[in-house]
Amino acid sequence: MEDYKHRVQYYETDKMSITHHSNYIRWMEEARGYFLSNIGWPYDRMEKEGIVSPVTAVECKYRRSTTFPDEISIRVYIQSFNGIRLCVGYEMKNADEQVVCTGHTEHCFLDENGKIVRMSKEYPEFCEAIAEYIEE
Amino acid sequence: MEDYKHRVQYYETDKMSITHHSNYIRWMEEARGYFLSNIGWPYDRMEKEGIVSPVTAVECKYRRSTTFPDEISIRVYIQSFNGIRLCVGYEMKNADEQVVCTGHTEHCFLDENGKIVRMSKEYPEFCEAIAEYIEE
Amino acid sequence: MEDYKHRVQYYETDKMSITHHSNYIRWMEEARGYFLSNIGWPYDRMEKEGIVSPVTAVECKYRRSTTFPDEISIRVYIQSFNGIRLCVGYEMKNADEQVVCTGHTEHCFLDENGKIVRMSKEYPEFCEAIAEYIEE
Amino acid sequence: MEDYKHRVQYYETDKMSITHHSNYIRWMEEARGYFLSNIGWPYDRMEKEGIVSPVTAVECKYRRSTTFPDEISIRVYIQSFNGIRLCVGYEMKNADEQVVCTGHTEHCFLDENGKIVRMSKEYPEFCEAIAEYIEE
Repeated sequence: MEDYKHRVQYYETDKMSITHHSNYIRWMEEARGYFLSNIGWPYDRMEKEGIVSPVTAVECKYRRSTTFPDEISIRVYIQSFNGIRLCVGYEMKNADEQVVCTGHTEHCFLDENGKIVRMSKEYPEFCEAIAEYIEE
Repeated sequence: MEDYKHRVQYYETDKMSITHHSNYIRWMEEARGYFLSNIGWPYDRMEKEGIVSPVTAVECKYRRSTTFPDEISIRVYIQSFNGIRLCVGYEMKNADEQVVCTGHTEHCFLDENGKIVRMSKEYPEFCEAIAEYIEE
Repeated sequence: MEDYKHRVQYYETDKMSITHHSNYIRWMEEARGYFLSNIGWPYDRMEKEGIVSPVTAVECKYRRSTTFPDEISIRVYIQSFNGIRLCVGYEMKNADEQVVCTGHTEHCFLDENGKIVRMSKEYPEFCEAIAEYIEE
Repeated sequence: MEDYKHRVQYYETDKMSITHHSNYIRWMEEARGYFLSNIGWPYDRMEKEGIVSPVTAVECKYRRSTTFPDEISIRVYIQSFNGIRLCVGYEMKNADEQVVCTGHTEHCFLDENGKIVRMSKEYPEFCEAIAEYIEE
């Protein structure tokens, strides 16, 4: 899968003249949506199935600053997935191939009543699609 | 009613070292929510009544820049209300009482099916509360 | 020039399940940046020349709601430019070619000391590039 | 020191009807700014001294959802500080005193040339002020 690309926007910078750190969390969401679409599970399909997938944790290390109008390449991979809890990893690089940010997000899957969905049982085909991208 | 106060946050600035212009639109929403709470119609009460009130237009003139950590005072008033369409005005000042931004937003009222609610008919008490704040 | 495309992000929606209205102001900035790049005046080039171009006014009419993951096409054109004050227009459409939002922004041009730059005098080539896109 | 209070704004929610997770990172910044002001080192004072303090890492666990118009209480404390690297902790509670989010941010201190400032050497009074809030 090709990396997801995000162009840093002017409104994403702050008075330190660099990208405000909170935006990388949003780019993770963008890249994750792109990844899920690419494996056949766009997020709006999930929502149509009645599943929401809230973020339960996020972690991010900022290694180099970026700013408008840099283009950031984001590689998404799966750190782990036990059928209930999904851990997604991200590696972001600038145009010079330097790592600017690494991080991960954790997710669970809930039905419309807020009950945990065991994806391994209810959606084995989702788990298979995910399994291909697990990296140790 | 006292003015609503908003402290400019670091994450609201951009690389021009000033508040990004899009944030004033968000502060209008904050100030409007404060105003509605003060007249006894907090926005979550409206939502419980099954009414949503989308913004149909916004207009904003930026007169002076602001930046972190300025405190902005926002006066909210009603420009017009015909029972269907509400036009809310805003005047924002810095700590030196200088006008930094003026603007307005327009709103309609919709029920859960997306149908327009005639507030003057369905919620006359809302209209009365609003009427007090109309300024020509 | 082709329209600028923006994919609505999940983080741009609000609890009304639609795009929060403040984001359209940000998309105008994205589309304007794309437009300026296309006519040979990317915003970072301006900044290198020591010019900043703050937004002095914005106006926006919301005609239809949008939501994640809609793709929005944004056409940028020039409403007027007198060499000092630039007025940029925007027309945004959804994938069904329906207009979802129209609006405009006004801009001046400042040097590093905050003094107004007469673009017609200092950067006639900028004015020529802009002139091609003026629509009455 | 009293907790910092943040009222969840409508524009901070998403179509899951809850606060978008990226906003908690921004609230950490708000609460950190409040904390630094309270110990006599408001962030704009630092900037006047020629110091910037970028975020080098962030970590956040989401324990309960929040939404508009919840009021969130944020307690800020120091996890560690070796005079160069500062680790700030956050505990966020809703009005029912339930923990909704915990997290931390890491910071370094840079001068105007981007060189690391040894705060313990250059600003011992800052270190003393911080030391009072260290929790194991």
